[in-house]
Amino acid sequence: MDKIILASQSPRRRELLTQIGLDYQVIPSTVEEVITETDPKLVVQELSRQKAEDVAGSVLRDRIMREQWEKDTVEAENGREGILVIGADTVVSYQGQILGKPVDTDDAVRMLSMLQGNAHSVFTGVTLIRRGLKETWQVTFAEETRVHMYPMTEAEIRWYVGTGEPMDKAGAYGIQGLCARFVEKIEGDYNNVVGLPVGKIWQELKKRCRSSQKEGIADGTERIRA
Amino acid sequence: MDKIILASQSPRRRELLTQIGLDYQVIPSTVEEVITETDPKLVVQELSRQKAEDVAGSVLRDRIMREQWEKDTVEAENGREGILVIGADTVVSYQGQILGKPVDTDDAVRMLSMLQGNAHSVFTGVTLIRRGLKETWQVTFAEETRVHMYPMTEAEIRWYVGTGEPMDKAGAYGIQGLCARFVEKIEGDYNNVVGLPVGKIWQELKKRCRSSQKEGIADGTERIRA
Repeated sequence: MDKIILASQSPRRRELLTQIGLDYQVIPSTVEEVITETDPKLVVQELSRQKAEDVAGSVLRDRIMREQWEKDTVEAENGREGILVIGADTVVSYQGQILGKPVDTDDAVRMLSMLQGNAHSVFTGVTLIRRGLKETWQVTFAEETRVHMYPMTEAEIRWYVGTGEPMDKAGAYGIQGLCARFVEKIEGDYNNVVGLPVGKIWQELKKRCRSSQKEGIADGTERIRA
Repeated sequence: MDKIILASQSPRRRELLTQIGLDYQVIPSTVEEVITETDPKLVVQELSRQKAEDVAGSVLRDRIMREQWEKDTVEAENGREGILVIGADTVVSYQGQILGKPVDTDDAVRMLSMLQGNAHSVFTGVTLIRRGLKETWQVTFAEETRVHMYPMTEAEIRWYVGTGEPMDKAGAYGIQGLCARFVEKIEGDYNNVVGLPVGKIWQELKKRCRSSQKEGIADGTERIRA
């Protein structure tokens, strides 16, 4: 069974992994993000890859962590034990503009004024890096969810920004918070908007973890523990 | 400002009202549900109406609650103070069959075996009953959300039923729980699947609460308190 490492400090991503019953450890990436793409679907994949590779690299560079990992890995029967690093990045895209986290309250008001009464896309890019003695793989993908928002009055936007909820979130809103008042409907994975497409991640793990298949995880009958 | 009464014991409905910043009191309905409709969209409206009317009736029949309400109502400037009762009912519909809560684990396995790998509809019916000295209204509506599930193996279904999560939920799954592993995408309001379409409810309150408009609630700038 793999040790899962979440390369993100987002409390919402942590909650989602917990929600689907996974144990994990958090090691946030400290890499400086470099964006070379312009298509939001590619940008989030690029950033998720940088974060996951940064953390996977530092885990395997760290002497103590590496020794522990090798010990676990060698000890585990059939060399099943490995690490699985999950990196993710989320942006909002509206009419060709990429919206990250607002820089200040004016920026949050600007973003919400654009998004209210309209539909936009949320892209989350995910990179999974699995390192084991017998099996190593890496996969990057992006999920898109369309979000339709009800019209918001100026006063509603100012009230909402005043609650502070928008300030640390891509597109200046939290679908899992107060902003649920203003969300009409979505098309796609809700958790992708929250920050991590856990359905797709689970399916990728089912498909790819040869070790997990041996362990019965592919049948959903066991937990992957950290 | 209205006292909000949720005519439901569902912890998930409570969490959703809290999430969008509403204060409320819980008075579960004890009415015996009578279903005369067959269309799921009408069934949930019928049941939500029975629950909300039962609770609104008992609140106004109860001497102490009635006195308190009249006192609040008369004291409140312009007679703004009223009660707002929210009743709701949720069912899952798959190929013409209505799925409520499973009666036992075999029933849960049967439901999940139907839903896995397919798309189904979740209907939540909502009745809002507002009683005030100057303004009284009642509205019933239903929201539909389509849910697409990934294929599940027999072992996954057995594991999931074994966690106990399906047992108190319409259609034998909780989208906000472990079942997120198996949900591919949705079309509609996610919170409608959880049990309460809070976006639509908020918009109805904005539109209908004349008193709220005076209070600025229509601008989203104030909380409605219980």
